[in-house]
Amino acid sequence: MKRILVINPNSNAAVTNGLQHCLAPLQIKGQIEIECMTLAEGPFGIETMLDAESVVLPLRRVVLEREDADAYVIACYSDPGLALCREATPKPVFGIQESGLFSALQRGARVGVVALGTKSIARHLPYIRALGLESRLAAERPLHLSVAQSEEAAAFPRIEEVARLLVEEDLADTILLGCAGMAGHVKRLEDALGVPVTEPTQAATVQALGAVLLN
Amino acid sequence: MKRILVINPNSNAAVTNGLQHCLAPLQIKGQIEIECMTLAEGPFGIETMLDAESVVLPLRRVVLEREDADAYVIACYSDPGLALCREATPKPVFGIQESGLFSALQRGARVGVVALGTKSIARHLPYIRALGLESRLAAERPLHLSVAQSEEAAAFPRIEEVARLLVEEDLADTILLGCAGMAGHVKRLEDALGVPVTEPTQAATVQALGAVLLN
Amino acid sequence: MKRILVINPNSNAAVTNGLQHCLAPLQIKGQIEIECMTLAEGPFGIETMLDAESVVLPLRRVVLEREDADAYVIACYSDPGLALCREATPKPVFGIQESGLFSALQRGARVGVVALGTKSIARHLPYIRALGLESRLAAERPLHLSVAQSEEAAAFPRIEEVARLLVEEDLADTILLGCAGMAGHVKRLEDALGVPVTEPTQAATVQALGAVLLN
Amino acid sequence: MKRILVINPNSNAAVTNGLQHCLAPLQIKGQIEIECMTLAEGPFGIETMLDAESVVLPLRRVVLEREDADAYVIACYSDPGLALCREATPKPVFGIQESGLFSALQRGARVGVVALGTKSIARHLPYIRALGLESRLAAERPLHLSVAQSEEAAAFPRIEEVARLLVEEDLADTILLGCAGMAGHVKRLEDALGVPVTEPTQAATVQALGAVLLN
Amino acid sequence: MKRILVINPNSNAAVTNGLQHCLAPLQIKGQIEIECMTLAEGPFGIETMLDAESVVLPLRRVVLEREDADAYVIACYSDPGLALCREATPKPVFGIQESGLFSALQRGARVGVVALGTKSIARHLPYIRALGLESRLAAERPLHLSVAQSEEAAAFPRIEEVARLLVEEDLADTILLGCAGMAGHVKRLEDALGVPVTEPTQAATVQALGAVLLN
Amino acid sequence: MKRILVINPNSNAAVTNGLQHCLAPLQIKGQIEIECMTLAEGPFGIETMLDAESVVLPLRRVVLEREDADAYVIACYSDPGLALCREATPKPVFGIQESGLFSALQRGARVGVVALGTKSIARHLPYIRALGLESRLAAERPLHLSVAQSEEAAAFPRIEEVARLLVEEDLADTILLGCAGMAGHVKRLEDALGVPVTEPTQAATVQALGAVLLN
Repeated sequence: MKRILVINPNSNAAVTNGLQHCLAPLQIKGQIEIECMTLAEGPFGIETMLDAESVVLPLRRVVLEREDADAYVIACYSDPGLALCREATPKPVFGIQESGLFSALQRGARVGVVALGTKSIARHLPYIRALGLESRLAAERPLHLSVAQSEEAAAFPRIEEVARLLVEEDLADTILLGCAGMAGHVKRLEDALGVPVTEPTQAATVQALGAVLLN
Repeated sequence: MKRILVINPNSNAAVTNGLQHCLAPLQIKGQIEIECMTLAEGPFGIETMLDAESVVLPLRRVVLEREDADAYVIACYSDPGLALCREATPKPVFGIQESGLFSALQRGARVGVVALGTKSIARHLPYIRALGLESRLAAERPLHLSVAQSEEAAAFPRIEEVARLLVEEDLADTILLGCAGMAGHVKRLEDALGVPVTEPTQAATVQALGAVLLN
Repeated sequence: MKRILVINPNSNAAVTNGLQHCLAPLQIKGQIEIECMTLAEGPFGIETMLDAESVVLPLRRVVLEREDADAYVIACYSDPGLALCREATPKPVFGIQESGLFSALQRGARVGVVALGTKSIARHLPYIRALGLESRLAAERPLHLSVAQSEEAAAFPRIEEVARLLVEEDLADTILLGCAGMAGHVKRLEDALGVPVTEPTQAATVQALGAVLLN
Repeated sequence: MKRILVINPNSNAAVTNGLQHCLAPLQIKGQIEIECMTLAEGPFGIETMLDAESVVLPLRRVVLEREDADAYVIACYSDPGLALCREATPKPVFGIQESGLFSALQRGARVGVVALGTKSIARHLPYIRALGLESRLAAERPLHLSVAQSEEAAAFPRIEEVARLLVEEDLADTILLGCAGMAGHVKRLEDALGVPVTEPTQAATVQALGAVLLN
Repeated sequence: MKRILVINPNSNAAVTNGLQHCLAPLQIKGQIEIECMTLAEGPFGIETMLDAESVVLPLRRVVLEREDADAYVIACYSDPGLALCREATPKPVFGIQESGLFSALQRGARVGVVALGTKSIARHLPYIRALGLESRLAAERPLHLSVAQSEEAAAFPRIEEVARLLVEEDLADTILLGCAGMAGHVKRLEDALGVPVTEPTQAATVQALGAVLLN
Repeated sequence: MKRILVINPNSNAAVTNGLQHCLAPLQIKGQIEIECMTLAEGPFGIETMLDAESVVLPLRRVVLEREDADAYVIACYSDPGLALCREATPKPVFGIQESGLFSALQRGARVGVVALGTKSIARHLPYIRALGLESRLAAERPLHLSVAQSEEAAAFPRIEEVARLLVEEDLADTILLGCAGMAGHVKRLEDALGVPVTEPTQAATVQALGAVLLN
């Protein structure tokens, strides 16, 4: 029995529960368990650079302490601590922005990202350039919602509105949800839009699943 | 029970067998079957543009005929017919160069590709630019071997030599095998080099596995 | 007497006639003949990837069979079979998208492309990236017309409207017609807009003319 | 009768004669005359930025004075005054670096440029970036020769040596001569190398020919 | 006592006076004098390529003649003659577009440039590409004003309107004034907008100040 | 009297002393004081991602606590905490890699960076891409020395050797020292090489000086 540890770096348990639910189809009975945990010392939502920074060393500590896991997923779209955790362990560690972008780009030519707010977008753009993917980005557009708000069912119409702008105005043909909090909306959004919608924690966990099965 | 169909577009059954073997760990008993098939009308190796072109419409035909499959992998590093097959079916179709590059880049910053020959490299470079990934490529280097030769155990020392140049001269920190024929060498090469080595048909099949499990 | 063979890969003879007419000024009496031919097995218009793919091997066959020609132009804006035909013959072969972009960019800094539809644009963008020209593209905008419709005089107002948006909204200062079907509109459009308008089959045939004269 | 005026901005008449000779095949009896002229106030060779700068305003003056010409070619690889002359006249003006690069890139995927010296290369690189073509450049390599030296037959072995390095070390598959002075070597070099070699003044004059014939 | 010579290449003394005023805080009593001079032979405003070109050799002459200066700033946003002057002297020479962009990009992620007109923008874009900074440009937008008009107090509302569009429509988070004529508006604009506004002659003079102090 | 606080994030006081010495020429008597401080909780050298990460929150704390400073310089070439500190204070904060690259690129076309080791280079490259400056990088080459070793006089011959390779092999025409520890070598290296050498803490402090004088 092998284990993928998905760490929600914010301390909002509703988000962790949403992830556990949306990752359930990737569990393999008797072979692969997926455990979603909440980072106790995380802020309630990661919305500023300070929020993101505050979880970096705690994430590294979890990765080192939880030796029972075979692969790790950092379930915050800013990929906090990703490079650091990779330095710390030879086991595979995945970040949801990186995996989400790569996965969405296998389902279309130009990716549109539904982001929480303009500050998130300012954090994401240099990272997308660092990943070398700038030429594949149609646009990021902000919801102007907090992590917690984006998780609620009531957020759906706003999420759909923004995703539709990405498709119609920015010519995106593949949509990526830019926060783990929106995991519960993925199916409904894909049905509504008619273009592929990628949930990034699923994308990273698929990578982790492959790494664990192949090792 | 769901099925991933991995199509080897060349008619070299040894390559197909090699793939079946290296993909075995990704099968999930009672849930996901992975079938590797040889494209009957394919050339013995895909080494020219004409070779690649000759399998495009046959691949599309297979994708349409094999309705029993839930996802498809085109197991030739030139990704022949990938866009065309995606146009033809709403089911997920993956190409091994695209998936291989995206997967290798989640294991390092600069990817080095072990290619069969200089003509392959000339085909790959514009495609890497089209994917927007040029800035992440350390280099491609040629083996000067045919598909069939690259599959044999005797090819290993040459593969290792070229991969080592990619690491030492071109500063690659993640290696990608640039032909499905080399699938059998992946573990041994990773052990010898000490840097991650990605086998691209595995990478594409992991994507297919995720897509099938999540749908 | 030397001959440039311009192959219209769709089977719409009105398009071929339009090309013959717009290329007439490039014929040189007693020295260079320009022959426009219709590809018999081509679809009536090339609007999907399957349309484009279906003419690739037939184009190669024509290039090999028509040994009496000294240079070839593939007169479909998707440049189907261009790399393949270049592999097949040492004689010069030109594609109208490639030549059209390079020519338009010698008449301005930012090129705007009048495309048939959004699917065409999706096919063109990765190719423009592969050509390395993405930074010079102001935008592509769709007519939402078929090849046959774009050829008719009635299409002019729509073509002008879209070209004007490329100039005024996207700051293009040089316009490229994104389909051989629009060849008949080039002069009138240039007069109406006041910026240079490039007809891509003319651009490719100029390259062919130079290659034939210099050889 | 129409006229293309090719202006050699240096005052070395041997270079002008070499151009007249290599452009002869592009003349069309009774229709297009090609006149190569030496810029009287040009330096003997254009090797520094001051050399290039010193011809800019004189080139503009010639373009305005020679109203009898229908198109102009500036035959110095630094493209001095190109933008300025285009601002000054509605008639077509071509620069040999711009046309040479675009033409060479229709004969291969990665262009290698044979430059006179390292100072020339330093001038060319930002311009290639400004043209947006950086990703298509295999490399530039210096001859360490003056314009006048590069024109002489004795320079051939050195030119061949450098071109061969561009092909073998830098993986160029299309070669561009980076100075009008080398015009006389183009055929011999192409025969020796076995890859296409583009003479840039020919490339620009082909563009001028097309523009004149089509207008 | 060391001296920084700031050369206003247009002959509008009001612009020179504006510069002297806005650079006053960078003078260091008893140590560094900043002298702003008007180029006598410059046009009244630099608005065309011919205007820019006409000052290049005169700027070089001033740099060579004014041996009493320890560093030079060319205070026209087109950076006319920058490379040429650097070739002519071992002393540091700075251009205000280059310094302005680099400085603005240390105060935000995406720079928006307030330009005089669309012709200025056409001149700037290839230069920004040559500098390699294209990916950091949010947009340039035109005032549709002359240099002299932009200098007047009455221009402020229009400058503010355009800067606000750069922030709100183009998502710029750092603003750069694209002409030395606007120097007098910098403080007021920064207060009005709430994002950093860079005056480019100040930026270049800071570089000159550093170079002089460190030498 | 205004104050620029230069924070050396490692706890090696010899490095701090070296900085104080090399920044002395930028102090302005009676007007600007430059204070170099050692971060008490920093590691002895910043050589891993963990080292860099460990100083991020402490740097932010110093910036907030030291309200008497008017501008801040983070004197570690990894620019740890730069974005975070900019989020935390409205006062100007500069990072030495960012300022160093921008400053070096005003002294040449292609920058070569002398780095401590290959791990540093792996950290720098994605950041250079995020800055959008990749096309201006000639290369980074490793010294294979620690911060402390690079600071000693005995390191000079190795630093010179690596810088010379950057110039001769990688065609850099401007050199940047990739660690604050090498500050003491800058003058001697510039004299030895004959190309400009930028010391990045000086470059960042010049920016801070300008910001303080202009505010």
